Amino acid sequence: MDRESKLVERIGRAFRSGSRRTHDTALRLGIGDDAAVISSGGKDDWVLSCDAFLEGVHFLAKTHPADSVGYKSLVRATSDLAAMGATPRYFLLTLAIPASRTGVWLDEFLNGMVRAARSLEIVLAGGDTTKSSVISISITVVGEIARGHAVTRSGARPGNIIYVSGTLGRAQLGLELLLHRKIKVRGHRGGRARHSDRVLQRLLQPHLYPKIQVALGIWLAKRRMASAMMDISDGLSTDLGRLCAASGVGARIFPDLVPRVTVPAKFSNLTGGLKLDALKMALHGGEDYELLFTVSPRNVKHLRAAPGFSQLKAIGEVTRGKSVMLMDKDGTKQHLEPRGWDPFRG
Amino acid sequence: MDRESKLVERIGRAFRSGSRRTHDTALRLGIGDDAAVISSGGKDDWVLSCDAFLEGVHFLAKTHPADSVGYKSLVRATSDLAAMGATPRYFLLTLAIPASRTGVWLDEFLNGMVRAARSLEIVLAGGDTTKSSVISISITVVGEIARGHAVTRSGARPGNIIYVSGTLGRAQLGLELLLHRKIKVRGHRGGRARHSDRVLQRLLQPHLYPKIQVALGIWLAKRRMASAMMDISDGLSTDLGRLCAASGVGARIFPDLVPRVTVPAKFSNLTGGLKLDALKMALHGGEDYELLFTVSPRNVKHLRAAPGFSQLKAIGEVTRGKSVMLMDKDGTKQHLEPRGWDPFRG
Repeated sequence: MDRESKLVERIGRAFRSGSRRTHDTALRLGIGDDAAVISSGGKDDWVLSCDAFLEGVHFLAKTHPADSVGYKSLVRATSDLAAMGATPRYFLLTLAIPASRTGVWLDEFLNGMVRAARSLEIVLAGGDTTKSSVISISITVVGEIARGHAVTRSGARPGNIIYVSGTLGRAQLGLELLLHRKIKVRGHRGGRARHSDRVLQRLLQPHLYPKIQVALGIWLAKRRMASAMMDISDGLSTDLGRLCAASGVGARIFPDLVPRVTVPAKFSNLTGGLKLDALKMALHGGEDYELLFTVSPRNVKHLRAAPGFSQLKAIGEVTRGKSVMLMDKDGTKQHLEPRGWDPFRG
Repeated sequence: MDRESKLVERIGRAFRSGSRRTHDTALRLGIGDDAAVISSGGKDDWVLSCDAFLEGVHFLAKTHPADSVGYKSLVRATSDLAAMGATPRYFLLTLAIPASRTGVWLDEFLNGMVRAARSLEIVLAGGDTTKSSVISISITVVGEIARGHAVTRSGARPGNIIYVSGTLGRAQLGLELLLHRKIKVRGHRGGRARHSDRVLQRLLQPHLYPKIQVALGIWLAKRRMASAMMDISDGLSTDLGRLCAASGVGARIFPDLVPRVTVPAKFSNLTGGLKLDALKMALHGGEDYELLFTVSPRNVKHLRAAPGFSQLKAIGEVTRGKSVMLMDKDGTKQHLEPRGWDPFRG
């Protein structure tokens, strides 16, 4: 189990043993999944999730445009609701910034966040602001879903087919580029440089302005097509491990089937010789925010009607064991170690 | 207007002008009040608020026990719901800590928070954990209130009587003591010192383990006794200014009526000569989490049945103007400047 998951388990244990109200009937799903599910008393359940986005941990204030920080912090928080199949409605923003960031930086940050809120059709309902030595953003997103339809991480069953909703590793490619471009592109003004720059800018988008799978999540949950679901925020290897642990199952993944980013032929030139392994990025790269979900074989045929069906890829199947295995084409197999993003790894 | 309020207004403006869904009928109350109010579709509304509690801004990791940090961060977040008259139910915890804090510090922090959750009868529903260079806590509290009963800051009317729910300045007295005790008490082991230490420890409690007014808030909201309400987190002078601005009214406060902390006779000795002004602490000291509320004269007689009635004090009245005035006993008056806690003040 990764360190962050262990920490979450420890927090959960402390509160379970300390609380009088151990069986809260309105709390349909508590900590450990992508989001909490609370009965509203009406025909819909509420789905709530919170997400931290911190300078020096999740982004670098000197490298990442403020507009991207605002956009991405809201999008990634909302992805946790997409992962339950919920419709996002509102968000609360806790914003702690140094006084030096209350000028242009804040305007650009808000521009990015307003743009994300508009595209997600989600409304700012409240928040808290204070100063801080580093930029610290925490967002709580509130959404709705028909009672009992939320898709958890724990419903995967042996024989289910494992799907991802799109290409993996694109965000890491963008990140690597951003970190290297800083050195490479500065000062270039010629026509060729501008063309290269446009190519590079396009490759940066998945890292700076990620898209999330809200419509697909809603579709899958509404029709009960997915037995388990989560979003891939920390990397397939880490997140699939979490889904399997929550479901008490194992998995068999075929690396050839994993849809991976194409590293452009000129990439190495453009970045001063940086070489990247597309499969490694697809298996372990974080922040793609694609959905990872499992489907019973009898439901597979119905997926044709799903939003973005052409992007959905079956990458393997759920097994009875507890281990997550990578099946190479030559028949050899190896453990898929969780090597995605883990903030507490040494 | 204080700087933090200006910042909140700026954020609100950015989202109002940028959003297509300007009139969300389910969002009964958006940003700018203590908490957001959202219709659940059922007979109750949901009330949500979030609150940041940061190392180096709101507490000092070397001075404040981890147990107090856990306890207080949840209590102060929940106070925003008390300020609406809501019943707190759930909370989400965003916890960002250095790896060095994941041992004993985290255990003690969780102990304190579990104790607060138990006393508030509130359940951990979810959260997010990550690493950070400094301890950064953000808590979202979710509560319920009968539809339309939430008490906002904006309902105060000229002629209403202004109340506070208890003694002000106690938290600041505790803080001053804590900051000075560090120097003074260290190394004392004698019998007399132990007695002094017990006295000091008692005085520290309101700062380290504040109590909040959930029962009173619920009582006032249920009977529609308060025309406006908020909790005093940043100091009476700052928070009363906010309530008056939200209501479009002024106020007249009689300093003799403001219930203030008693500075013990030995205090100056115990702290190596520190001298404190009880009225200044009552007017400008933050973190008391008492309720500040306004009552129509015809409802005043009903307050006798309120929980903690003997502690309720009328301190002045709402006026037609826009200014908040302090009326001295000799008949002179002066503006009550907002001199409470403002994170963005230079």
